[in-house]
Amino acid sequence: MNTAETIASIGENESLKRTISRLNASSSALVGPGDDSAVISAPDGRFVVTTDTLVEDHDFKLEWSSGYDLGWKAVASNIADVAAMGAVPTSLVVAVTAPGHTPVSWLEAFADGLRAACENLAPGCGVVGGDLAASNQIVISVAAHGSLEGREPVLRSGAQIGDIVAVAGTLGRAAAGLTLLQSGNTDAISAYDELVNVQRRPNPPIKAGVAAAEAGATAMLDLSDGLAKDATRIAKASGVTLQLDPLQLQGFEAVLEEAAMAINFDAKIWVIGGGEDHSLLATFPSDAVLPRAFKPIGLVVPAGPSPVMLGAQPLPESGWDSVRG
Amino acid sequence: MNTAETIASIGENESLKRTISRLNASSSALVGPGDDSAVISAPDGRFVVTTDTLVEDHDFKLEWSSGYDLGWKAVASNIADVAAMGAVPTSLVVAVTAPGHTPVSWLEAFADGLRAACENLAPGCGVVGGDLAASNQIVISVAAHGSLEGREPVLRSGAQIGDIVAVAGTLGRAAAGLTLLQSGNTDAISAYDELVNVQRRPNPPIKAGVAAAEAGATAMLDLSDGLAKDATRIAKASGVTLQLDPLQLQGFEAVLEEAAMAINFDAKIWVIGGGEDHSLLATFPSDAVLPRAFKPIGLVVPAGPSPVMLGAQPLPESGWDSVRG
Repeated sequence: MNTAETIASIGENESLKRTISRLNASSSALVGPGDDSAVISAPDGRFVVTTDTLVEDHDFKLEWSSGYDLGWKAVASNIADVAAMGAVPTSLVVAVTAPGHTPVSWLEAFADGLRAACENLAPGCGVVGGDLAASNQIVISVAAHGSLEGREPVLRSGAQIGDIVAVAGTLGRAAAGLTLLQSGNTDAISAYDELVNVQRRPNPPIKAGVAAAEAGATAMLDLSDGLAKDATRIAKASGVTLQLDPLQLQGFEAVLEEAAMAINFDAKIWVIGGGEDHSLLATFPSDAVLPRAFKPIGLVVPAGPSPVMLGAQPLPESGWDSVRG
Repeated sequence: MNTAETIASIGENESLKRTISRLNASSSALVGPGDDSAVISAPDGRFVVTTDTLVEDHDFKLEWSSGYDLGWKAVASNIADVAAMGAVPTSLVVAVTAPGHTPVSWLEAFADGLRAACENLAPGCGVVGGDLAASNQIVISVAAHGSLEGREPVLRSGAQIGDIVAVAGTLGRAAAGLTLLQSGNTDAISAYDELVNVQRRPNPPIKAGVAAAEAGATAMLDLSDGLAKDATRIAKASGVTLQLDPLQLQGFEAVLEEAAMAINFDAKIWVIGGGEDHSLLATFPSDAVLPRAFKPIGLVVPAGPSPVMLGAQPLPESGWDSVRG
C-alpha cells in the first residue's frame, strides 16, 4: 500500500475498484456492484429502505475516528433503522464524497470497516453499489435495505395503552464516549476506552429487531437521537404518553457513573439525552414474553400533557438536532 | 414563505416536515416517509438499486442551478441508472447536506424539483425517505429503486458480435449547456437556453429503458460520462469492440453546430465526450425491431486493439472523472 496515493491521484474508477475488492458480497444480491444498478432479492415482495448521512466535523472528527471506524459506524447507524422495522438487513449502497487529497489507504480502511460491520452485525448483508466524488469535506451517505420475511413492519405509531416500554442494547455509552473525547482528558479517555469505542463503532442489537417483531412489538424505533427525543417520537406517533420508570433506568446509569465522575459529568444526561448507541426502543403488549435482549423501562399510559414522563416529572424533548447541533 | 428562514433557524425536523409535504407519494410505497424505514412493494420479488451524488462546486454551481433544477437533476441522473437496467423507477431516498445558512426556500424549491422530475419522467415514482444534515457545502446523495416487472435485467456485459449499437435520447446537449455557462457569453447563453436547460434539468428517456428490454436489448447503460467513456464500459464488460459510425452521429452534431460556432467550440467534442444528458446506450440483436426512441449509431464487432472505434479511428476513452474533474 502506497500511502502517498490519494483518491485524486488514482482517480474515481481505480479508487472504486480497490474499495469494492475489499467488500463482502450481499447474499441477497442477484447482480452485485459494477453495473448501472444492483439487483436485490426481495423474497416476500417488499423491501424496507432508509438513508442516513455522516458529515465530517458535524457527525465525526477525523482525529477521533479512523476510516475503519467510520465504515463500521455508517453501516451500524443505517442497519439499526432497518432492524427497527423488524427487518433483516440485506444490502447497502454507499455514497462517499471526500477531498481529492484523501489517502487511498483511508478509503481502503473505510471499506474494511463496512465489511467488518456487515459481517459482525448482520451476516449476509453487504454493499451492492456505491459512488465516489470530490468534495471539501467527507460526507458518507448510506441507503440500507432489508427484508421483512413476511412479517408486518413494526411502526412508531402502534403503541397501545398498557403496553410495556422496553430497550434492547445500551443507553448513553456513545454519548459518554463523545463527552470523554471532547474533554481532552487523555487519562479518562484511556481508562474508559470501552465507552469511546462505542462512540466510534456502535454495536446496535440488530437481531433484537426481528425478535421484537416476532414477540408482537406494537411500536419500535432506533434510538439515534437519545431516549428523550426518540421516546417522544413514539408517543406522538401513537397518541399516547410513555411513562418511564427512573428505577428501571438506574442500571444504565450505574455502569457510566465512574466515567462520569472522572470528568465531573452527570451520567443521567448521557442515558436520557445521548443517542448513537443505536439501541432499540419498543413497546410490547403487557402479556408478551419480552425477547431476552429487551429490558423493561416503563409503561404506555393515556396521553397526558407531556408525551414522555420520567417518574412524576415531564421529560422535555431534547437531544441532538443534526442541523443545529 | 419567509425568506429570512434558514434550515438552521427552523431545525432539522421542521425543515424535513416542510420538504416532505411538497413531495408526491410513490405508488409503490406500502409505508412512506416518517418511520425509521419506508416499506416498498417489489412485486416480482426483486428490486434494482443505484446511488449517485451531486456535490456543490464539483457537479453544480449555485449561481447556475436553482434548488428546483438540482432536485430535478438529482432524480433524473439516478432514475436513468434504473432505466438502464430495463426497470421502472419506483422510489427514491434523498440525503441532503447543506450549510445551516441555506434558506428554507431553497430546500422547498429542491423538493418541488424532486416532485416535478418524478411526475414528468417516471410517474408513480416518489421520494420515500430522506435525511438532512449540516455541512460546509451542498451534497445531494440519492438512492433510486426500480422494478424489473419480471424481466431479466439488461447488463453491460451482454453485447454480442453483430449487434446493433443504438442511442435513445440526445447526445452532447448538457455538455453544450455547460460550456455555454462556462463561456460567460450571456448572448449565447440566452440564445441557446434550450441547451443550458438540458444541463440544468436533463430529460433522460426513462421509458425507453423498458422498451429496450422488451425489444431484446443485450446490453445497456446510462450515458452519464459521455459516449466515449461509456461505450468503452460496454465494450470491456462484453469483451467486444463497439464500431461507431461517424455518419450516424452527424445528426447529433448538426443540432449543436450553431451554438458551437457562437462560442468557437467543436460540437463533436460535446457529442463524443459529453455526459449528463443521461441518454441510454444499448445493443440489440441485428434482427431486433428497435424501439422508436433508439437511433442506430454502430455495430458490435470482435474485440480489436481499441474497445471503441469511430470509423477507422480508435476512440480514446475520455470524459468526466468525478474525482479528478
